Amino acid sequence: MKNFTSFADAGDYQALLNKALEIKADPFGYQHVGKNKTVGLIFFNPSLRTRLSSIKAAYNLGAQAWVLNAGADSWTLEMADGAVMNGTTQEHIKDAIAVMSQYCDVLGVRTFPTLKDREADYSEEVFNKILKYATVPVISLESATLHPLQSFADLITVAEYKQTERVKVVLTWAPHVRALPQCVPNSFADWFSEISWVDFVITHPRGYELDEKFTKGARIEYDQKKAFEGADFIYAKNWSSYHDYGQILSHDQSWLVDTDHMKLTNNGKLMHCLPIRRNVEVSDAVLDSPNALIIPEAGNRVFSMQTVLHELLS
Amino acid sequence: MKNFTSFADAGDYQALLNKALEIKADPFGYQHVGKNKTVGLIFFNPSLRTRLSSIKAAYNLGAQAWVLNAGADSWTLEMADGAVMNGTTQEHIKDAIAVMSQYCDVLGVRTFPTLKDREADYSEEVFNKILKYATVPVISLESATLHPLQSFADLITVAEYKQTERVKVVLTWAPHVRALPQCVPNSFADWFSEISWVDFVITHPRGYELDEKFTKGARIEYDQKKAFEGADFIYAKNWSSYHDYGQILSHDQSWLVDTDHMKLTNNGKLMHCLPIRRNVEVSDAVLDSPNALIIPEAGNRVFSMQTVLHELLS
Amino acid sequence: MKNFTSFADAGDYQALLNKALEIKADPFGYQHVGKNKTVGLIFFNPSLRTRLSSIKAAYNLGAQAWVLNAGADSWTLEMADGAVMNGTTQEHIKDAIAVMSQYCDVLGVRTFPTLKDREADYSEEVFNKILKYATVPVISLESATLHPLQSFADLITVAEYKQTERVKVVLTWAPHVRALPQCVPNSFADWFSEISWVDFVITHPRGYELDEKFTKGARIEYDQKKAFEGADFIYAKNWSSYHDYGQILSHDQSWLVDTDHMKLTNNGKLMHCLPIRRNVEVSDAVLDSPNALIIPEAGNRVFSMQTVLHELLS
Repeated sequence: MKNFTSFADAGDYQALLNKALEIKADPFGYQHVGKNKTVGLIFFNPSLRTRLSSIKAAYNLGAQAWVLNAGADSWTLEMADGAVMNGTTQEHIKDAIAVMSQYCDVLGVRTFPTLKDREADYSEEVFNKILKYATVPVISLESATLHPLQSFADLITVAEYKQTERVKVVLTWAPHVRALPQCVPNSFADWFSEISWVDFVITHPRGYELDEKFTKGARIEYDQKKAFEGADFIYAKNWSSYHDYGQILSHDQSWLVDTDHMKLTNNGKLMHCLPIRRNVEVSDAVLDSPNALIIPEAGNRVFSMQTVLHELLS
Repeated sequence: MKNFTSFADAGDYQALLNKALEIKADPFGYQHVGKNKTVGLIFFNPSLRTRLSSIKAAYNLGAQAWVLNAGADSWTLEMADGAVMNGTTQEHIKDAIAVMSQYCDVLGVRTFPTLKDREADYSEEVFNKILKYATVPVISLESATLHPLQSFADLITVAEYKQTERVKVVLTWAPHVRALPQCVPNSFADWFSEISWVDFVITHPRGYELDEKFTKGARIEYDQKKAFEGADFIYAKNWSSYHDYGQILSHDQSWLVDTDHMKLTNNGKLMHCLPIRRNVEVSDAVLDSPNALIIPEAGNRVFSMQTVLHELLS
Repeated sequence: MKNFTSFADAGDYQALLNKALEIKADPFGYQHVGKNKTVGLIFFNPSLRTRLSSIKAAYNLGAQAWVLNAGADSWTLEMADGAVMNGTTQEHIKDAIAVMSQYCDVLGVRTFPTLKDREADYSEEVFNKILKYATVPVISLESATLHPLQSFADLITVAEYKQTERVKVVLTWAPHVRALPQCVPNSFADWFSEISWVDFVITHPRGYELDEKFTKGARIEYDQKKAFEGADFIYAKNWSSYHDYGQILSHDQSWLVDTDHMKLTNNGKLMHCLPIRRNVEVSDAVLDSPNALIIPEAGNRVFSMQTVLHELLS
């Protein structure tokens, strides 16, 4: 593994998953890998879970970490090659990233989509510049279109809780009051469409189709209830439209995942990447039931990061 | 010790005090307790001393630490059970605290009073939710009504500097330009009213009576000078009224602790939790005299925290 | 070494430089010095490079670090002795610094110039108070007039890349769109005017003369091209006027360092402390050429700090 930015970087996903389960079983047993290593974490927008789980992962591995909150207003980066920097931008991204690379052994970076300019977002303009200028391995802590550490944590969680060899996993759109990025569902599809022991189904209202580059031919079922039938895992998440880019097309409350929905499943587990709007995306009754995996799923963010750090620092 | 939120959690206070003095004498001698442990520190309002002393305490103990500044505007938590979260709150406190618990072995949290709604503040509404949802031990880094790590540091300081077996300790109200919480004086009373070798007296203008739940029948002397007579330790602190909740009732400058006041004492030591408004609460002459203990007292914040971490992580 | 605030504190600069090169060759070989030590870092204005390189230096040395962003608006310090603090200042600097000293073994502090009140800036009013009240060694992370960690890193870089026993080093003013402090050029002059194996020349438009206290009789050449002739190292940097204090006197683009300028040198290396305004101070062609040392120079910030920490903690 050279960088970790998408499912493709995972290589042999089953081997990586097995490594994650080994590390989770013995979280402090790999500190020779992290010894004298420093993990740099740069956030271009706020983060709680990713920040804290990444720090914990570094500590577990015997490494150190630093965090830089590079708010757009505190440190304005120039993105254009050849720019005459006589305006408001203070540093060129090529210098900033090369310098940050001097102060760590692996660099985690979170960028974010505009949700306005689809071409810029889906070409991963900013993240690709970071990859280009970094001189140490780079980990995506979420980019404009993907969130691979979340998806890997989700895979660990499904592997831990599955009761049968094959499982049906359903990604369902859920309502929200704000327009959210497609990163988490894109990434979930990027991963789960590839897992050999998963029957993967996506369900959402018409108009919410994700980019086929990530869904890779996965089955789309527009009837949510039909999709839920026999499911072992329900992954609830809101996203804004990819086709009407960044728009909210539906507030249909029938898509809120409640106990009636869950009754259609095969005693299905409920997952969500958090933060969740309770009683808007999923009902309290479902979230507070024994079938909700949201807390152990969040806990697995430590082990997805620790495993990726282990691979990149080994 | 399961959590540390008030004097009651200290259990055998003399044993805890002795442990603190042992740890202070050998601060790096207990690193087997902190090895591979992570201390999470969440601040819902700004902190300097508590933040830095807690980090140092974790390091001394061989543990790691992370800090989250959860400013009200950057991360809006829903407090109401059953809320339909279609407004501005982004995450329910039950999820936030359960998730944070996944990323540490002990959780320090600072909340703060409204100073407007006494019932909400004195029922410790927010802090009690944190205790309810946390799955790791919780340390109060100051709550709406108490600041037990400060009081424990104060106890260590008095124990270190006392010259006689029994000592007279006086908590005195002092003027200030802003309306301050009652946390520090409440907590000081909560602790010092219970110490068997302390004669504890509280002095303040009429109207500044603290909640009896914390003063527990301690002697109140409205004549400040009379209170100071023969005192071994003067603990100066401003607070706003508990009865006229959050109000400033007095700007009486005769309550400013100056050298004339200190002459009434038994060569008394001056303490204050800091930050202090010089020449408003206490005069420069007193604060810069050899009898002022404010800096070693602040230094003892490391050892109160380190001792509590030691107990919770052992 | 008791503190590190200027060239004078470096003592035997050649010995310190040799120590830095030894540490760089074996960055984790000195962890006995940092064991159980905590480095406190206080920033009164934002920092990226200094912050991250200082943290990395502490980690390399086996020490821990904490960072305090003491923004002027979040924590207002009283500077005046004897002040009656009934206004907006919340804590006296004498208490703040003494307290911070309790929570670390060495204190790094960044202050900044007003660029309006030259007397206050050049008397290092704030930094001298910090030195007065600190009870642990203090490192300047940049003060109102100097940036010695940068200059020491620059010295390490010149020592690493020089091809001949003696070298010609030219500090050149370069254009900028904002009025910048004189800290970096003052400090560069403070150091390089003293290095026995350096021929040091300063070039700038008339009116940009630096304080002679730092240039110490160094040769000033107002013709930039003449200055560049035969130079081994070009150090480009903008600064505002010392004499017309804080003013921008020139926007002359002929001072922008481009390939034509560099052709005059002895295959000279280009240095800059970063962040740099590309194509305003120095052209892309120069910055992206193999002769640009800006990234390894930034990397040496780790080793200048680590060496200073090593000296202060030994």
